[in-house]
Amino acid sequence: MFILLSVFMTLPVVLLALAGEDVPNAVAFAESAGIVFALGAVGVLSMYRQPRDLKPRYMFVLTVSSWFIIALLSSIPFYLSDNGISAADAFFEGTSGITTTGATVLSGLDDMDRDLLLWRSILQWIGGIGIIGMFVAVLPFLRVGGMRLFATESSEWTDKALPRMKTLSRGLLFVYVFFSAVAVVTYWLSGMSLFDAFNHGLTSIATGGFSTSDQSMGKFSDLILLEASFFMMLGSLPFFLFVREMHGQRFVLFKDQQVRLFLTILLIVPALLTLYRWWVSPVPFDPIHNYISTLFNVTSIVSTSGYASEDYSAWGPLAFVVFFFLMFVGGCSGSTSGGMKIFRFQLSLIILREQLMRLLHPRAVFTRNYNGRAVSDEIISSMIAYTFIFLLCLLIITVLLASLQLDFVTALSGALTSLTNVGPGLGDIIGPSGNFSPLPDAAKWILSVGMLMGRLEILSVVIVLSPGFWRG
Amino acid sequence: MFILLSVFMTLPVVLLALAGEDVPNAVAFAESAGIVFALGAVGVLSMYRQPRDLKPRYMFVLTVSSWFIIALLSSIPFYLSDNGISAADAFFEGTSGITTTGATVLSGLDDMDRDLLLWRSILQWIGGIGIIGMFVAVLPFLRVGGMRLFATESSEWTDKALPRMKTLSRGLLFVYVFFSAVAVVTYWLSGMSLFDAFNHGLTSIATGGFSTSDQSMGKFSDLILLEASFFMMLGSLPFFLFVREMHGQRFVLFKDQQVRLFLTILLIVPALLTLYRWWVSPVPFDPIHNYISTLFNVTSIVSTSGYASEDYSAWGPLAFVVFFFLMFVGGCSGSTSGGMKIFRFQLSLIILREQLMRLLHPRAVFTRNYNGRAVSDEIISSMIAYTFIFLLCLLIITVLLASLQLDFVTALSGALTSLTNVGPGLGDIIGPSGNFSPLPDAAKWILSVGMLMGRLEILSVVIVLSPGFWRG
Repeated sequence: MFILLSVFMTLPVVLLALAGEDVPNAVAFAESAGIVFALGAVGVLSMYRQPRDLKPRYMFVLTVSSWFIIALLSSIPFYLSDNGISAADAFFEGTSGITTTGATVLSGLDDMDRDLLLWRSILQWIGGIGIIGMFVAVLPFLRVGGMRLFATESSEWTDKALPRMKTLSRGLLFVYVFFSAVAVVTYWLSGMSLFDAFNHGLTSIATGGFSTSDQSMGKFSDLILLEASFFMMLGSLPFFLFVREMHGQRFVLFKDQQVRLFLTILLIVPALLTLYRWWVSPVPFDPIHNYISTLFNVTSIVSTSGYASEDYSAWGPLAFVVFFFLMFVGGCSGSTSGGMKIFRFQLSLIILREQLMRLLHPRAVFTRNYNGRAVSDEIISSMIAYTFIFLLCLLIITVLLASLQLDFVTALSGALTSLTNVGPGLGDIIGPSGNFSPLPDAAKWILSVGMLMGRLEILSVVIVLSPGFWRG
Repeated sequence: MFILLSVFMTLPVVLLALAGEDVPNAVAFAESAGIVFALGAVGVLSMYRQPRDLKPRYMFVLTVSSWFIIALLSSIPFYLSDNGISAADAFFEGTSGITTTGATVLSGLDDMDRDLLLWRSILQWIGGIGIIGMFVAVLPFLRVGGMRLFATESSEWTDKALPRMKTLSRGLLFVYVFFSAVAVVTYWLSGMSLFDAFNHGLTSIATGGFSTSDQSMGKFSDLILLEASFFMMLGSLPFFLFVREMHGQRFVLFKDQQVRLFLTILLIVPALLTLYRWWVSPVPFDPIHNYISTLFNVTSIVSTSGYASEDYSAWGPLAFVVFFFLMFVGGCSGSTSGGMKIFRFQLSLIILREQLMRLLHPRAVFTRNYNGRAVSDEIISSMIAYTFIFLLCLLIITVLLASLQLDFVTALSGALTSLTNVGPGLGDIIGPSGNFSPLPDAAKWILSVGMLMGRLEILSVVIVLSPGFWRG
């Protein structure tokens, strides 16, 4: 993994050199790639022919530590570059990249060294495929993230399924690369410069949200915003369903309950919010233009991308509140997006309905079905555990940020946006028109850990930190 | 019930007359009592010798409608008084009283007609014993509110348990009246006027929070604040455990898991918060006085009383955030307090621990124990259903309030404080130094409904509103 990362680290230099452009931080990237490659080589040599232990305990440590270490390594180019980026800022930016969060401490992006901009986008792109792979190949074995709910047969997660897993992985990679290429070309044909198209193409499919401008995507046309909404939506759908479609299982995507609710949200919320904006608008209102900007910004938040085309928090109190709640939602399980994920809300709704029925018919027996299959008690326990630990972490991070004297809205929305990997928060400091750089260093470290925890579905980090884990 | 209410309505007049004071709204109270008595008499006559149907469906309608109707009737004296109180304000105040919330739209309390002040306190006192009774005698049959978790044997909730239920009810009433009397006398001996002592005694045990001054309890001595903290704490404990203690089951109170966590919170949070206040204080800090004020205000919020001795939201960002989260907590099940209730957090924690263990030992079998007894799947489902519907209602009410152009903090904390029956919200308008009167009428109606839903454990209201309820 380290060796792969070091190869990716040479990409910004190579790409810019091929395009005949300056590469201001070539030395920094070369040094970074060298360090990471050396670490990787040491690792390979020392692990060579060592027996592999696939017990849950070992896999938890491996998964969690590799994300933390890769976040650390990927921040080296920022730190070594000539831009005076502090350690806290570099780690924050690297973590925000690899976790596809999209919160940034950098400003002056329009004039920033292009190799750094490229590195940010590439990081998010790696992070995107990384999370898809983890959801399909690692988390189901660890019983984290609820992916077992979506397996066709339980045998899919046994050791015998490894060959099939390889086919699936190849399919996922193909779909991911294909979508990214389509996004880049589409943006380019719609008027973006090749450099902008490449960066935004990569970060759209990864639902990352890093942009090449301080205005985020606010300087692009309505057509591009529409396209970006579509690509962020694609990035929030379960990628394994695309692979199944590719293998001939037609319409499997639209039969999936989480996909349906996700698309319904994107259909209804922007329309209603546009009507509200029309209602409270003091000036003449352009419904088409404003619908597109509402659709774009809502999609950006629900998909946990984090682009903004304007300061949506200034659209009135209702919009502010709606964007706050949308930050919780997130996309589908098995996509590049974060958040609490659609299926958890649906499971809760199933239990609620069941309980209401039980209150009226105490003796009746109920079966729980999701996507046409029975829901086991273990899935329910897993959902409760996740929700509880999510809200607990939200509380803890908010309290920590507030103890650094950050105000209520900044602390609460900052904690939320890091755990859900959305990107911007709310309020004057870290809102869509703000930036995370004014925060104290301690807050940046806390938020970085929050982003990593959110990306790892929290439980896998908590279990590694629990005392019982290291005992016996 | 109506007839009892009409008798209580004469109390403010009778008490003030006995004390030789003016009764400015005697006519209003007489009219109100007359209306309610007449309605009650009609009810008794029309229901006399009618067969009683104890099916869940009927009991749900009866429970929910009686709280809504009593809230409506109890607001009549406010509406008929000479103080120009609008219908929305009267209903808000009556609902806030009977639900023991303590949010108020009235100001100038120090010079307010004393019969109205008395009526507010009496309302909260009735509401307090009403909710204890409902938790013990009604909700367990309806499988709402989690009280089944605390039954010694399942047979306690069958029809055969009615005689025992009567003993229990008499015990609860005795404890409630006794505690209230002790509170009144204690306040009086500590320097309150008899009038203030009577009002605050009633509203402390009811964890109501209505005061006789615009400063709430800010004008009283540290000694009284300490006493009030103690009485609010008493009001937040499970009253049926007091009855059991009375019947000779020693220390049953301190063996109860929810009581232990509740007391731990009251031990730790005020101490830490005092240290924080010390740390950020720009002026010399009086640790004793400030510890007492912190203890008082924290107890007031956790017990969902809602008194304030000063504007705690100005104690710095950390205090603001802590008070926000404390508003969720609430007291023990079977007390007069509201909120989400301690035991639900404990059940979630049990599931979380179990899930962490399961991740490490996938084949192990787990048993869930709470208070030394097994926790049924039904209790877990009920907890999920409550939590989900609570958060959903929080979202809906917040969105509704924001659509009336209330700002984020006011909308969110207003929705929260109504659902948890705390009283004050946060922010400039409805914070501890504010008042609910500036809100638009629509917001007052919404918040009133929120208070009633919160008091009825939400699910019982939702089920009556669900389409399936009226079918078949």
